[in-house]
Amino acid sequence: MRRIILLTGGHSDPGRAKTAVNLIRYQSAEIAGVLDKAHAGHTTQSLFGLGGPIPVAATFDALPPADTVVIGIAPSGGQLPATLREQVLEAISLGMNVISGLHQFLSEDPEIAAHAALHGVLIQDVRKTVERDVANRFGINEHCLRIHTVGQDCNVGKMVVSVEITNALQERGHDAQFVATGQTGIMIQGSGCPIDAVASDFVSGAAEKLVLANQQHSILLIEGQGSIAHPRYSAVTLGLLHGCAPDGLILCYEMGRKHVAGMQGIALKSLCEYRSLYETMANLMHPCRVIGIAMNSRQHPLDEAEAERQRLKDQLGLPVCDVLRHGAHDLVQAVLLRGREVGKIRPPV
Amino acid sequence: MRRIILLTGGHSDPGRAKTAVNLIRYQSAEIAGVLDKAHAGHTTQSLFGLGGPIPVAATFDALPPADTVVIGIAPSGGQLPATLREQVLEAISLGMNVISGLHQFLSEDPEIAAHAALHGVLIQDVRKTVERDVANRFGINEHCLRIHTVGQDCNVGKMVVSVEITNALQERGHDAQFVATGQTGIMIQGSGCPIDAVASDFVSGAAEKLVLANQQHSILLIEGQGSIAHPRYSAVTLGLLHGCAPDGLILCYEMGRKHVAGMQGIALKSLCEYRSLYETMANLMHPCRVIGIAMNSRQHPLDEAEAERQRLKDQLGLPVCDVLRHGAHDLVQAVLLRGREVGKIRPPV
Repeated sequence: MRRIILLTGGHSDPGRAKTAVNLIRYQSAEIAGVLDKAHAGHTTQSLFGLGGPIPVAATFDALPPADTVVIGIAPSGGQLPATLREQVLEAISLGMNVISGLHQFLSEDPEIAAHAALHGVLIQDVRKTVERDVANRFGINEHCLRIHTVGQDCNVGKMVVSVEITNALQERGHDAQFVATGQTGIMIQGSGCPIDAVASDFVSGAAEKLVLANQQHSILLIEGQGSIAHPRYSAVTLGLLHGCAPDGLILCYEMGRKHVAGMQGIALKSLCEYRSLYETMANLMHPCRVIGIAMNSRQHPLDEAEAERQRLKDQLGLPVCDVLRHGAHDLVQAVLLRGREVGKIRPPV
Repeated sequence: MRRIILLTGGHSDPGRAKTAVNLIRYQSAEIAGVLDKAHAGHTTQSLFGLGGPIPVAATFDALPPADTVVIGIAPSGGQLPATLREQVLEAISLGMNVISGLHQFLSEDPEIAAHAALHGVLIQDVRKTVERDVANRFGINEHCLRIHTVGQDCNVGKMVVSVEITNALQERGHDAQFVATGQTGIMIQGSGCPIDAVASDFVSGAAEKLVLANQQHSILLIEGQGSIAHPRYSAVTLGLLHGCAPDGLILCYEMGRKHVAGMQGIALKSLCEYRSLYETMANLMHPCRVIGIAMNSRQHPLDEAEAERQRLKDQLGLPVCDVLRHGAHDLVQAVLLRGREVGKIRPPV
């Protein structure tokens, strides 16, 4: 088993360090520690609210031994910050392999590549892709139920919702599979496609290939990206939506978020508007509806979250839950209901 | 001035050879001939209906001397067909430079690159791009009118409509600029961005950069790509639409086309549906409406085209014309009207 140190470059907040947070959530047995001068002395539990006693320290010396570093942040634009460059070079000097989900490929960076060759370590760029196939809409298994998580914005929990529903379905004996489309999901799942790095002509083709590669399973939970109304990333969202042609959508949002993350002047739409937009665009390819709402209430007390949950249930007529607080039960039921509606899951006898 | 031979690999029909056809349309003074064994003995006038006496021949020997070959077809997926590989290698042996708009980069093909180095010729891959900037929505000149051509499908004439309206506006004394987003447009204009080759995260950013680079002009005609409902290319279309945030749209369609080109099973929507879809998606970023319809009636007699034109005008309440048959006048008027509506063009005194 690998022993991983996560690099966050001082950005150990859940918004910036989402790769680190989710590797701690789903791969904690592999995580030796977090390197972050700005938060040294914490544990991941005290810093991120999960992971227990995994240490956060200012130097490699102060952390348990490890063989791999992972870039734990996902900056907009995907470039390597200068502080992380130093730490990557130091990790290589110490003989550690490097895993990165940045758009900037570390394996093609002359300084980093030369240093890695010198020390005999591997650089893995998870976002490197050479997808060059268009969508064809041939060979789709019409017995496989395709559920896709979509959102009001980036970083609202689409990957976590996909994984939690997959796990809950598997616990109930269903043949469900998480399909990763982003760097963190790929690191967790060990397969998938970094869809936002694919040339735009081939985004739908890459999404279709993910479906074709996984449709031997009964139910796919396909991780969504960005938002259909995002000023930066709507191309990723629509190409993925059209390429995976889902039967059902789970609309993910963060309670209290008013503006597009990182673009303060730009207001988000209402959940009703997103529901209508996603259903309109999805139905261009395949019959589809929004089957439930996944709320991310991390910034709010439980009672406020519960009040909003009830209000939304009444307003939208859909199941609503925060999978990390309430469990995924209500959304699992929504998935199974949709499977029965479209004849892909047999009703219970 | 360059002397260009166009390679069509036997696919000298307007649907497949759209790069060749449009270089003949807009750059005919540079075109020495077309290499196409299957159609040798024709002129481009007899084969494509334009270009006059430019010869089509089976061998380089049978064509006038030239210093450049251009790949004249735009196959879906953008790979180099085997027949064209032979012709490219022969052209290089004859000392000619190579310009390609394929997704497959000829400058990175070991055989072609080695051969080019041996003969000292240049390989230019027009679709090669390293765009890595996200959209920011800063610095937009709100005095510049942005008009964007969109379509029901690929290859309906979005580039030609953009160029013809630009030329007609310039003839009337307006400071209009064509903004190229595809390989043929870039070859004609000498600048632009091959938007369908940009990684999906950066499509809107690349489109925004095109606006920023050209907004010193009063009116931009921004070439559209694909279709918002295309099973393969909707990501390109939406990222471009959101990145250029147009004030007005010209909806381009081909008369009589019933199915997505190259995907026979998949029916096109009605023009009303496309109008609604484009307006919904465009207005997420910036106030916008469809201001006119550009018909491509190449497959139909003039009287049938005229009847459809009248019918659509009445049905949609919009100007409708085939810019190659009727001229661009009606759409030019629609552009100027939209400019006055949004306060970017002063009313005539």
